[in-house]
Amino acid sequence: SGDRASDTSSTPPGTDPELTSVGDRSIGNNQGFFLRRVRLVFSGDINDYISLYLQPDFATNAATSSSNVDLHFAQLRDAYADIAFDKPHEYRIRAGQSKVPFGWENLQSSQNRLTLDRADALNSAVPSERDLGLFAYWTPSEVQKVWKDLTKKGLKTSGDYGVLGVGVYNGQSVNKAEANDNLYLVAHSTYPFDLGFLGSAMRGQVLEVGADVMSGRFTMNPAAYSNPYDNVTATVTPTNGSNFSISEDRVGVHAVLFPQPFGLQAEWNWGAGPTLNPNRDLSPTAGIQGVIERQNLNGGYVQAMYKIDDVFGTKGTMIPYVKWQTYNGAWKGATNAPRVDMDELEAGIEYQIFKALELTVAYSSMNRTNVSSASSADYLRQASGDLIRTQIQFNY
Amino acid sequence: SGDRASDTSSTPPGTDPELTSVGDRSIGNNQGFFLRRVRLVFSGDINDYISLYLQPDFATNAATSSSNVDLHFAQLRDAYADIAFDKPHEYRIRAGQSKVPFGWENLQSSQNRLTLDRADALNSAVPSERDLGLFAYWTPSEVQKVWKDLTKKGLKTSGDYGVLGVGVYNGQSVNKAEANDNLYLVAHSTYPFDLGFLGSAMRGQVLEVGADVMSGRFTMNPAAYSNPYDNVTATVTPTNGSNFSISEDRVGVHAVLFPQPFGLQAEWNWGAGPTLNPNRDLSPTAGIQGVIERQNLNGGYVQAMYKIDDVFGTKGTMIPYVKWQTYNGAWKGATNAPRVDMDELEAGIEYQIFKALELTVAYSSMNRTNVSSASSADYLRQASGDLIRTQIQFNY
Amino acid sequence: SGDRASDTSSTPPGTDPELTSVGDRSIGNNQGFFLRRVRLVFSGDINDYISLYLQPDFATNAATSSSNVDLHFAQLRDAYADIAFDKPHEYRIRAGQSKVPFGWENLQSSQNRLTLDRADALNSAVPSERDLGLFAYWTPSEVQKVWKDLTKKGLKTSGDYGVLGVGVYNGQSVNKAEANDNLYLVAHSTYPFDLGFLGSAMRGQVLEVGADVMSGRFTMNPAAYSNPYDNVTATVTPTNGSNFSISEDRVGVHAVLFPQPFGLQAEWNWGAGPTLNPNRDLSPTAGIQGVIERQNLNGGYVQAMYKIDDVFGTKGTMIPYVKWQTYNGAWKGATNAPRVDMDELEAGIEYQIFKALELTVAYSSMNRTNVSSASSADYLRQASGDLIRTQIQFNY
Repeated sequence: SGDRASDTSSTPPGTDPELTSVGDRSIGNNQGFFLRRVRLVFSGDINDYISLYLQPDFATNAATSSSNVDLHFAQLRDAYADIAFDKPHEYRIRAGQSKVPFGWENLQSSQNRLTLDRADALNSAVPSERDLGLFAYWTPSEVQKVWKDLTKKGLKTSGDYGVLGVGVYNGQSVNKAEANDNLYLVAHSTYPFDLGFLGSAMRGQVLEVGADVMSGRFTMNPAAYSNPYDNVTATVTPTNGSNFSISEDRVGVHAVLFPQPFGLQAEWNWGAGPTLNPNRDLSPTAGIQGVIERQNLNGGYVQAMYKIDDVFGTKGTMIPYVKWQTYNGAWKGATNAPRVDMDELEAGIEYQIFKALELTVAYSSMNRTNVSSASSADYLRQASGDLIRTQIQFNY
Repeated sequence: SGDRASDTSSTPPGTDPELTSVGDRSIGNNQGFFLRRVRLVFSGDINDYISLYLQPDFATNAATSSSNVDLHFAQLRDAYADIAFDKPHEYRIRAGQSKVPFGWENLQSSQNRLTLDRADALNSAVPSERDLGLFAYWTPSEVQKVWKDLTKKGLKTSGDYGVLGVGVYNGQSVNKAEANDNLYLVAHSTYPFDLGFLGSAMRGQVLEVGADVMSGRFTMNPAAYSNPYDNVTATVTPTNGSNFSISEDRVGVHAVLFPQPFGLQAEWNWGAGPTLNPNRDLSPTAGIQGVIERQNLNGGYVQAMYKIDDVFGTKGTMIPYVKWQTYNGAWKGATNAPRVDMDELEAGIEYQIFKALELTVAYSSMNRTNVSSASSADYLRQASGDLIRTQIQFNY
Repeated sequence: SGDRASDTSSTPPGTDPELTSVGDRSIGNNQGFFLRRVRLVFSGDINDYISLYLQPDFATNAATSSSNVDLHFAQLRDAYADIAFDKPHEYRIRAGQSKVPFGWENLQSSQNRLTLDRADALNSAVPSERDLGLFAYWTPSEVQKVWKDLTKKGLKTSGDYGVLGVGVYNGQSVNKAEANDNLYLVAHSTYPFDLGFLGSAMRGQVLEVGADVMSGRFTMNPAAYSNPYDNVTATVTPTNGSNFSISEDRVGVHAVLFPQPFGLQAEWNWGAGPTLNPNRDLSPTAGIQGVIERQNLNGGYVQAMYKIDDVFGTKGTMIPYVKWQTYNGAWKGATNAPRVDMDELEAGIEYQIFKALELTVAYSSMNRTNVSSASSADYLRQASGDLIRTQIQFNY
């Protein structure tokens, strides 16, 4: 966890605003130990065709009264049923709350992900990665085998979301009620190519590439926010008439070279969606006004990593990595869908001491728009900082 | 899920109010996919006499702050211990949060129930069916055998709540704290008769009949509500002096002919309990005033069904059904215990493709009082509509 | 549950205030059946060195809207990993949310504890006993054996928290976010001595003695409270400038003679910590003002018990006990950390009918400061009363 309070003594307040991150709640002032994910999986095959999967998370905040919020309540992450149409499970339907197939890192489990957070640019499409809907996947047996073989070698796939996947879902984010009469649509494609055809030097190397699209309508409840304008902070509420339901469209691409031992991973997405315009100066008399409108967005990341097996003569594995990411566009998971302007360079090492225990140390240099609280004087201000984070992860 | 917004452009507002149902939260405007029940059961016999049963539900809303409510938190449905006094478990005490033995359909699990919702008339006695208390049941071994044999044939019993059952419980509904110093009392009776004595044509046919009584005192916190009176909507708060603790008494009867292949099922209950009188015009000067007072209630349902085994030459089972229900009385689970005036005709088919997977399609024509939000202009107005609902159910 | 309403007709109001307890939420007006703890344990050894432990509790209140609180949500109690450095587990680190090793009764599980509540004096150091942090324990194999042998005899140890334990933790209490940049420190010691060296009459008798220290900084959000002063009740908010982060330090001692058949148990702690001073009369003009300041605290308990095996010729065990406790100091778990002045005498019998089922009946004569609601007219007033409580406990 990083730790730097806002410098509230400066004029205007918040010129050295608090550094926070949409991806890691433990970055901010007054932080100590923090449980980021505590998850149990209940799953089972009911017969050859149907299986159920239920994953609650015990790291969710809930209010215990109108003035107090406590940590560590249990809330669903996943709750879905898989219905296969054939014994090899090449054709499947997934019904319930599950991951939305947009992006590659979004689909990879946090347990498998190398870096501490997902990249903002693609995660902004589906904050928390999940939604309630109906999805169909197709995965030929030979691709299932490629992914299983990669996993056996200790390589980190994104899990099986088909080489082709399509879905419809509510689109208001995980654990949120639907708020309009439009469903989101998503389509996902990916394919792992064996690069052996490039010559024997490349034999066994796997490059996975793919593209995704999504489209839908997002509805939000606008809330008053603290707006820094002309160095004066004012409280403004977005006014759109009655229209806070705005369409969102995105297209993304990804390419992943699995680290044997050197790996590369890159994703990018472009689109447009609901975005807070905090300073629409409508006229000299109307003054500053906020509106939520459709604006463009784009961003992505590039990551390089190197896998070292049997470190120190043990069964342990060490993967040093470096990741650069940038994003300029709305973060719809935050109040009023404010525009985030961020870039970040992270260098770290994941050390898997044995299967059950993983230690990650990462150094980050980040520049981010503070969107953690709409009523804070730091809201919409840029913060930058360097920080070192440590994470212990227990796998079971 | 049905979907119709209130016509707010009409005068007075809400003359074509939103159709909502106390039994199905997914009926209303702006609905998409919806998880109605996500339940896990943890249970076990500790020894020959004592067993524990714990069932959380992961489809409960909770506030995460003073202005935001999220879905899918885990909350207890059942948490009880059974203590038997004899090895065949003829005499049992059940301590904890469990179903209150009033009615027959109330006791039948949602997994077993044919229709999408329970009938309002009997469910209004114990919304969510459960409460915290102490219950005693007596089930002779020969009746345990009758019910087990019915279950083996794929017939849907209500579960074993004794041929006689008595209980005391808090009475403020499931997961609510006790709010007065009076406990509710309940007594339940039911008996499955083999109709073989009517001649060989009736051999194997089973008719279950019984009656129930309950009595207690219900305490509520009155809240401001939107009151349509003389076509003007005003906000009124019930005034009873300090007395919002009102006695409730009910008697119910039921009769069930299990479908072999033709079945009939009927229940009715009569009583009186706390009910909002929204328009007590106390005097010309005092104006409109609301009070919560003891008023009569009554209602029930009749259901016919037909069981078709081995449909399409498979192991599947199909049960077409038709159900008519009516209720006129208070819904104490809603703010201020408003009076509900409803009738509904539902025709549907449950298709159990195999044990793990059930699909239900139902057509309903319903007329209901909107009681979903006390502050809505639709509150207390009648809404009617026809709707088709689909439900996928996974059993494990 | 006890039951006595406040006598609000008296002048000043609340001169016969409601009797409530920080240790038992079921003491108060309008109480019926009550689920105090509903806990499931998920645990497992991942390998010879690492084990995980997860314990949610299903008896937590949460808000479902801004005006309603429901019972029985699932929230974490424990969530930790144990990492041992040696096969006999003499040296261990515990990471996550777990019990803070301060006191002896605090560490004993509620399932094992004889009395219905923990003593306030020591529990006030760590309300709910748990926090999020990093702890290290050392337990020599021979001491592990002593504790295991005691458990085999049906004696109730406090569990293995080392003969020496040290830890750092957030310190804002279980399931609360860290609120400052200081961690709490704690150190724990205990040792079970075999008294055989005192002569053959004492052979097999075990006396466990030890001492603990803790130190940290506690931060709170002050809230308006109802203040009885000069028999006039006023609403006051503590004013400390901006400093509501106050240091706390404590030292505690304990001694336990396990009941074979006669047992004795005693603990005491002294210290200072954040405490509400409700009536700091700053000056004739400023009037009454509240501040939260560092004040002394002290208190403890003495308990005697007698273990009767094979009661009534069965396998059952009966343990009559008597416990006297007193505490004068802050209860930091309540709003504004008010000073509690309490003493209590409890006499009871625990009857373990068989392993799975325990019945406890206890008579208490208690005198306590009411701190259950800061806005109540009873806040900070003394209440006394006698009550009989019954508890059924199911063990699995």
